[in-house]
Amino acid sequence: MRRCLELAQAAQGQTAPNPLVGSVIVQNQKIVGEGFHPKAGDPHAEIFALRDAGELAQGATLYVNLEPCNHYGRTPPCSEAVIAAGLRRVVVGMVDPNPKVAGGGIARLREAGIGVTIGVEEAACQALNEAFVHRILHRRPFGILKYAMTLDGKIAATTGHSSWVTGTASRQRVYQVRSTCEAIVVGGNTVRKDNPHLTTHGATAHNPLRVVMSRSLDLPTSANLWQTQTVPTLVLTSLGANPDIQKRLVDQGVEVMELEQLTPFAAMTHLYDRGLSAVLWECGGTLAARAIADGCVQKILAFIAPKIIGGIGAPSPVGDLGLMDMTQALTLERVQWSAIEGDYLIEGYLNL
Amino acid sequence: MRRCLELAQAAQGQTAPNPLVGSVIVQNQKIVGEGFHPKAGDPHAEIFALRDAGELAQGATLYVNLEPCNHYGRTPPCSEAVIAAGLRRVVVGMVDPNPKVAGGGIARLREAGIGVTIGVEEAACQALNEAFVHRILHRRPFGILKYAMTLDGKIAATTGHSSWVTGTASRQRVYQVRSTCEAIVVGGNTVRKDNPHLTTHGATAHNPLRVVMSRSLDLPTSANLWQTQTVPTLVLTSLGANPDIQKRLVDQGVEVMELEQLTPFAAMTHLYDRGLSAVLWECGGTLAARAIADGCVQKILAFIAPKIIGGIGAPSPVGDLGLMDMTQALTLERVQWSAIEGDYLIEGYLNL
Repeated sequence: MRRCLELAQAAQGQTAPNPLVGSVIVQNQKIVGEGFHPKAGDPHAEIFALRDAGELAQGATLYVNLEPCNHYGRTPPCSEAVIAAGLRRVVVGMVDPNPKVAGGGIARLREAGIGVTIGVEEAACQALNEAFVHRILHRRPFGILKYAMTLDGKIAATTGHSSWVTGTASRQRVYQVRSTCEAIVVGGNTVRKDNPHLTTHGATAHNPLRVVMSRSLDLPTSANLWQTQTVPTLVLTSLGANPDIQKRLVDQGVEVMELEQLTPFAAMTHLYDRGLSAVLWECGGTLAARAIADGCVQKILAFIAPKIIGGIGAPSPVGDLGLMDMTQALTLERVQWSAIEGDYLIEGYLNL
Repeated sequence: MRRCLELAQAAQGQTAPNPLVGSVIVQNQKIVGEGFHPKAGDPHAEIFALRDAGELAQGATLYVNLEPCNHYGRTPPCSEAVIAAGLRRVVVGMVDPNPKVAGGGIARLREAGIGVTIGVEEAACQALNEAFVHRILHRRPFGILKYAMTLDGKIAATTGHSSWVTGTASRQRVYQVRSTCEAIVVGGNTVRKDNPHLTTHGATAHNPLRVVMSRSLDLPTSANLWQTQTVPTLVLTSLGANPDIQKRLVDQGVEVMELEQLTPFAAMTHLYDRGLSAVLWECGGTLAARAIADGCVQKILAFIAPKIIGGIGAPSPVGDLGLMDMTQALTLERVQWSAIEGDYLIEGYLNL
């Protein structure tokens, strides 16, 4: 099953709206076939593994981190392919999160006389597909808020200068996180102040869609985000926002979309409609607070650098949430920390 | 040597301006005598251990975490007592930090034919007496800045409400830290907003002196800090500050002292002159920034609770330091972290 997860990860950030799935076929304690789902529209992982195993699938055991599908979508149901290949046993990491179809693939396999084991390495399987599961259950993308702050809670100096809060190892980790997402969202202020690239900087081949939310379109004429030859950029703005600037952006290859209400909620609705599962918020405190208040943040990644910058007016990672009393603070769940060279990463889930 | 450190710790916060010292006498691999230095004016640890061992000290080995003294102070030199007791060997954790006397005690022992080993568990010995060492080398108290903040870098909500940021285990740890210090400093704002006790809440018998820095003396008429029956409070203020309030405080048993310049530097000078070694800053961001700028903070203890309170105007742990660029941030050295039930503690040293 761990090998299935490894295989599945090869397509991180690229399978939405589909899940990350890897599959391994074992005959006489030897792996005879492997496969993973590369992207929506392509065959599922099981099909690649069955093709890879060929005749050797007969009587073998198939491992897969997610329940095989049992319906005709863009591809025929995997359950039928597994049955047709003559497998003896199927080991499933987790059942389909969609309550309407959950267990259907497993039932079909059992009906055909195949032994099915469920829930192997389930926690790891759930974690790998947490964005997909959230998308299915809540019909919304899974939002991750990432920020880097000093040990005194600032994401920049009073001047707004912020490069760099954390060290290279932490930034590499951020590139890796980006590669698992399908979109990164920032506000206009981040474009004006930091002129970020928001790419994986070559850490992986996949780059997420870069999204800028800007009501005013008061954006710089040239910016790293307007370089769209290899990585696309989408600017979300409000109805009727400055047409001249819209045209200038479009001329540079940027996609511009007007939303009736330019809120994090509306942005996430749009990204859901585009089929995205994992959205990374790398914005400043004001937009981060609105995203949290709109229920668009499910997970927080806080990188902390052991340094002190000071500044009463220096920006902090989360703006106004309207919470007046410390007892009202939003408590993170399933918190984990890790040391990343000189820095620390604390991560956890918001239960909103 | 570890037993020496254990014994020494029994007097934490109570020996200033003297160090924390424990001593163990071992004869035939059995402990035959133990002692520690309880407070300035009392005999040193070695003397207690020698008394405890009596005749059994003859030919034995004495362990002590700090080099035995070799001068007549309030008590006669320990080196002579060790020689007179007929010990064969002395094991020393660290030499005297004062460069003028360092090695004198050891030289005297060797002169008398006693074998001396130096530097056993030296890092732990240095850590236990870091405040004493700082006091000796810099002729200033050792300053520790402690704060508790949310994962979004706030020490209170926008309203100033702050109870509680961290959980009970973290607060117990703070009581324990307090018990190792001789003074705790806050500003008038903390008294007005939080009305703290600043005691160890019974965690240990020793309570440090509670110090309030207030220029205006705009302080509440009644406050937990004015309850001085068991723990004393010192208010530091500026020359000629409101005499009526001064009188009212003195009537309640509070000591009031006017300083020519009410700065963290001047406060630390005064606390040094009172013989204190370890001073804990538990103040808000404004005073914390001034204390850092004045070189009055050597160590930082940052307690971090995995919760989000938000607030652009919510106070953060360190106010203005005049640093304009992230590259100018003060980097902590020898950083350590620990998990404390649900919270995290990151600690390190400022090299100012």
